[in-house]
Amino acid sequence: MIEAAQSGHPGLPLGAAPLAYTLFTRHLKIDPENPEWFDRDRFVLSAGHGSAMLYSLLHLSGFNLSIADLKHFRQLNSRTPGHPEHGVVPGVDATTGPLGQGIGMAVGMAMAEAHLAAIFNQATQLVDHHTYVICGDGDLMEGVSHEAASLAGHLKLSKLIVLYDSNDVSLDGPADRALTDNVQKRFESYGWHYQRVADGNDLTAIDQAITRAERQATAPTLIEVKTVIGYGAPKQGTNQVHGSPLGAAGIIALRKALNWQEAEFTVPKLVTERFTKTLRQNGANKRQLWEQQRQELSPKAAQQFKRAITQELPADWINELPTYKLGQSESGRVTSQKMIQAIANKVPMFWGGSADLATSNKTDIAGSNSFTALTPEQRNICFGVREFAEATALNGIALHGGSHIFGGTFFTFSDYMRGAIRLAALQKLPVTYIFTHDSIAVGEDGPTHEPVEQLMSLRAMPNVSVIRPADPNEAVAAWKLALTVHDRPTVLVFTRQDLAVLKGAQQQVSGVSRGGYVLSVQQGTQPEGVLIASGSEVALALTAQQELLKLKHDVAVVSMPSFDRFDQQSRHYQEQVLPAHVRNRVSIEMGATLGWERYVGLDGVSMGIDSFGASGKATEVISKYGFSTKAVTTAYLKMW
Amino acid sequence: MIEAAQSGHPGLPLGAAPLAYTLFTRHLKIDPENPEWFDRDRFVLSAGHGSAMLYSLLHLSGFNLSIADLKHFRQLNSRTPGHPEHGVVPGVDATTGPLGQGIGMAVGMAMAEAHLAAIFNQATQLVDHHTYVICGDGDLMEGVSHEAASLAGHLKLSKLIVLYDSNDVSLDGPADRALTDNVQKRFESYGWHYQRVADGNDLTAIDQAITRAERQATAPTLIEVKTVIGYGAPKQGTNQVHGSPLGAAGIIALRKALNWQEAEFTVPKLVTERFTKTLRQNGANKRQLWEQQRQELSPKAAQQFKRAITQELPADWINELPTYKLGQSESGRVTSQKMIQAIANKVPMFWGGSADLATSNKTDIAGSNSFTALTPEQRNICFGVREFAEATALNGIALHGGSHIFGGTFFTFSDYMRGAIRLAALQKLPVTYIFTHDSIAVGEDGPTHEPVEQLMSLRAMPNVSVIRPADPNEAVAAWKLALTVHDRPTVLVFTRQDLAVLKGAQQQVSGVSRGGYVLSVQQGTQPEGVLIASGSEVALALTAQQELLKLKHDVAVVSMPSFDRFDQQSRHYQEQVLPAHVRNRVSIEMGATLGWERYVGLDGVSMGIDSFGASGKATEVISKYGFSTKAVTTAYLKMW
Repeated sequence: MIEAAQSGHPGLPLGAAPLAYTLFTRHLKIDPENPEWFDRDRFVLSAGHGSAMLYSLLHLSGFNLSIADLKHFRQLNSRTPGHPEHGVVPGVDATTGPLGQGIGMAVGMAMAEAHLAAIFNQATQLVDHHTYVICGDGDLMEGVSHEAASLAGHLKLSKLIVLYDSNDVSLDGPADRALTDNVQKRFESYGWHYQRVADGNDLTAIDQAITRAERQATAPTLIEVKTVIGYGAPKQGTNQVHGSPLGAAGIIALRKALNWQEAEFTVPKLVTERFTKTLRQNGANKRQLWEQQRQELSPKAAQQFKRAITQELPADWINELPTYKLGQSESGRVTSQKMIQAIANKVPMFWGGSADLATSNKTDIAGSNSFTALTPEQRNICFGVREFAEATALNGIALHGGSHIFGGTFFTFSDYMRGAIRLAALQKLPVTYIFTHDSIAVGEDGPTHEPVEQLMSLRAMPNVSVIRPADPNEAVAAWKLALTVHDRPTVLVFTRQDLAVLKGAQQQVSGVSRGGYVLSVQQGTQPEGVLIASGSEVALALTAQQELLKLKHDVAVVSMPSFDRFDQQSRHYQEQVLPAHVRNRVSIEMGATLGWERYVGLDGVSMGIDSFGASGKATEVISKYGFSTKAVTTAYLKMW
Repeated sequence: MIEAAQSGHPGLPLGAAPLAYTLFTRHLKIDPENPEWFDRDRFVLSAGHGSAMLYSLLHLSGFNLSIADLKHFRQLNSRTPGHPEHGVVPGVDATTGPLGQGIGMAVGMAMAEAHLAAIFNQATQLVDHHTYVICGDGDLMEGVSHEAASLAGHLKLSKLIVLYDSNDVSLDGPADRALTDNVQKRFESYGWHYQRVADGNDLTAIDQAITRAERQATAPTLIEVKTVIGYGAPKQGTNQVHGSPLGAAGIIALRKALNWQEAEFTVPKLVTERFTKTLRQNGANKRQLWEQQRQELSPKAAQQFKRAITQELPADWINELPTYKLGQSESGRVTSQKMIQAIANKVPMFWGGSADLATSNKTDIAGSNSFTALTPEQRNICFGVREFAEATALNGIALHGGSHIFGGTFFTFSDYMRGAIRLAALQKLPVTYIFTHDSIAVGEDGPTHEPVEQLMSLRAMPNVSVIRPADPNEAVAAWKLALTVHDRPTVLVFTRQDLAVLKGAQQQVSGVSRGGYVLSVQQGTQPEGVLIASGSEVALALTAQQELLKLKHDVAVVSMPSFDRFDQQSRHYQEQVLPAHVRNRVSIEMGATLGWERYVGLDGVSMGIDSFGASGKATEVISKYGFSTKAVTTAYLKMW
């Protein structure tokens, strides 16, 4: 494959093949004819550059991945891209490549399994599977591996088994140029069970180690398997076999070393039979047993289980959401808290948590306790101060399926999560992020805690929906959208400070789903100009509108909670909201201005913040950065 | 302070005061009258929310921080902001608050100390100091603490001493709700020396532990000091003293518990004297001895040392930079490699490395070896697959001073570094990032390795200079700028693929310093339209210009390597490059379009990529995403 593509990473596939083979033929519970079987074991190749090995195994296992597919490895529009892509390659449980994140997603999968098992395994064992990972040195060097492993150890996720392809070589050379950790000690410090297999070609030893790990009931297991990178290749054991094709001579030598005489892309019948007799038959049998169990569920339990798997919301989930009237005032984070509570009351499979900021992000579900090893049925996840692991775990929980998941932190610290938010977007996962403390209005905590560029940075990311509500009614609408969108993550950006209910926001709350809408129309038939704002700054636009009217300038106010949603509307709708000929436009947002020109153009003005924030009382900080009615009217009038 | 501000975190200051006091009065080598003394010990409060404690100690130590400053804690424009800010508060060696990063910066400081000591300590000991850290549970939960500690252990940074304020409580409650690591085992797995002080109020035990750590010659030390959060307050030992003022009743009880009878903001004479007799006199004496040593340097050594400290470049550093002529072609990363080499030849204190991608990022300095415990004078840093720790260490090295520092990785993985790039920008640190593989032209590795939104996301960050060169001459100019800018980090974005030398780029290379310039003028006196592009897409704009001319459309081509630099130019210059009345504008960049409207406005067109990339041959991927001369001309003609 790699030779055919003239591109790829032969090192891991050759070194780790025996351990992967052992895992697939003797342990992995999957049914390739039913690739989405809910109770299958999950498998994550965290070292995603070893994709050639994974695709070979998926083909041998009987997934809908043909020899022709393998021949198109790394070619455009193929089903065998350079790194494993969930949703593109049948049998790939997670998109990997950015190192470390595979482990984090696997931790999330194991968390989901534990949670669902606690809820659904009453008379039956409908949720009862392992999550296996193959990782490399690179994964373990990444910080997210620490966060995720520490969390997994704390939660005693005994059904999580990580096979560590320990080959002592990384891209740049021997791994010990940069890495001299004692891996055993490290993982034991997290409360993991550790095993070591000295010879990566010893199938029996690998098999026994995995079996021992499966019997562990109180801790996740790391099995360090000593392998030789690029085993059999002339330059085995060096970084020169890590990431480049071996070349024709290399292939000849490899074939000789491994005594391999089959033609290219030919699978010996013996191999096919082996996979049929082991993996395929076992998987099919186990799935049938599982289906039988499922038949035995009571009608009510069957409906609940089905609803979990299909992520269908109960018809009445929307009935008891909070409502707000003019005169009321509430911070975004508190409205979010009420929404979480209202949803949790109706949707049993709705859960989430925060990175040690639940009391600030307001993410706890009242009436539920912490999700722990002893109480896995509970719904409040304590991720600890581990934002990146949190985000990877959210991805894993979403990938696993069976629940609706959310996670929070301060908006500035979304920076720590960015790599995982990107993988959520790429995998089209319906994760909801609750990012509170959304601007310089954070106040005293100062610039390290005050987001500036985060809003625009996330808006620039493909397939992420970013919503910054202007008042409690928009916040309710935003949460509703987050829960009903299935093909992308939603970033909810909430204030720390109170927001008054705005006139018009309640009636026009459908506008939130369109991303932007005219919240307050001009007096005449056509606006002279438009003030466009998001979040807490919409109120400012409304007062400025009044002031401008006194000065005979008749402008409309557009609330723009979501760029991505607005950009998906028809030209016609966009023209209604922002008429092309109206060029007197001012945008108002306490964040980076870059990007607002999409709506204000070359003739408009963007009021924003293109420097870092400051520590002080929120009102004083806001004033220092020039956000006042007067400043808006001045900015508008300057265009004349 | 916290009561006066009605905002802040009393927990850490009360619990960790004894250990901080011990460190300051018995160990820390600083001279508050010369706060920038080069050989001072560095101190980083990684748990930056404990700022009230740090400011108190800085005041007591004699830094230029008055009682009046303390009274203005967390107020706007005060010198005592909510979290410690380097450059704002005298004596603060690093801006902290985003957890974990303080440890990473301290690792960088210790690396700088080791490197400079190896180079300059021949006859003298001009570089010989410790780096001390106080951190909390939150810091240790963050993944960057793993990366940084693993790196520090590998490098045997024995002059790094971390005091761990181990109080078993985090913001949301008891830390063991989320954290059950065995910290000793964990740090020993990294090769650290570990000590434990059972009673955080036992000054002698703390003192002895620090002394033992200072005698360590082969490993960094973590001293776990068991403390009581909010010691003396009514709710000591709980999360309720973490982040909110104690209140009037709490203060009364605290005073009683600690038997403290001084008036508010009053320092007993005894305390002032203690700090004078210990920290201040010791520091002043040691600094005088150091100045004497410095006098003894040979004139040549003295000049070298001065140049290191002042970061002055040798006059001839610019003499042997690579030059390129029409007809040549080279990838951005290779031009960068040649620049690194040319600079390294002339600037001895220029060093850096990569996150296990040196062979791909082309960051190694030829003729130098790896910076290791045994060879700290060498200039190639092997950060391992630890992007975040790398970026925090770069910050620490820059904060330490004495060298010019750079670091690289693949551009997509800049996501992993984002939190630290932000702290570089906030602290105005002249760090140079080398981000290669800058677009979908990465090809086979696919969407996980293909940047899309990274360019615009970094452009949105305040005080970061982002430069994406269009050809080898622009790449040379970009590197020159990076090395001569002192008040902000520079992100250099380089291609993997070859770039042909462009006509005009050599002559107008000063244009790079202005961010954008007319690379190819129209035929007539005024352009009918403008094609604006960056990086590899500028070549496309040039061929499209020719095609459009054949169709009687006379357009100019603007190369825009740096938004931030262009935005800083005068209106007059900007008008020369992009005349306001010329509205037929097309931007061309293989990245997110959001933000390009700053230059193309409402009437122009942005050719870009607002979805994720794809795996395939680079040329095919580029074609799939519609980047061709034909597509540019079509986009332009559509405006008519």
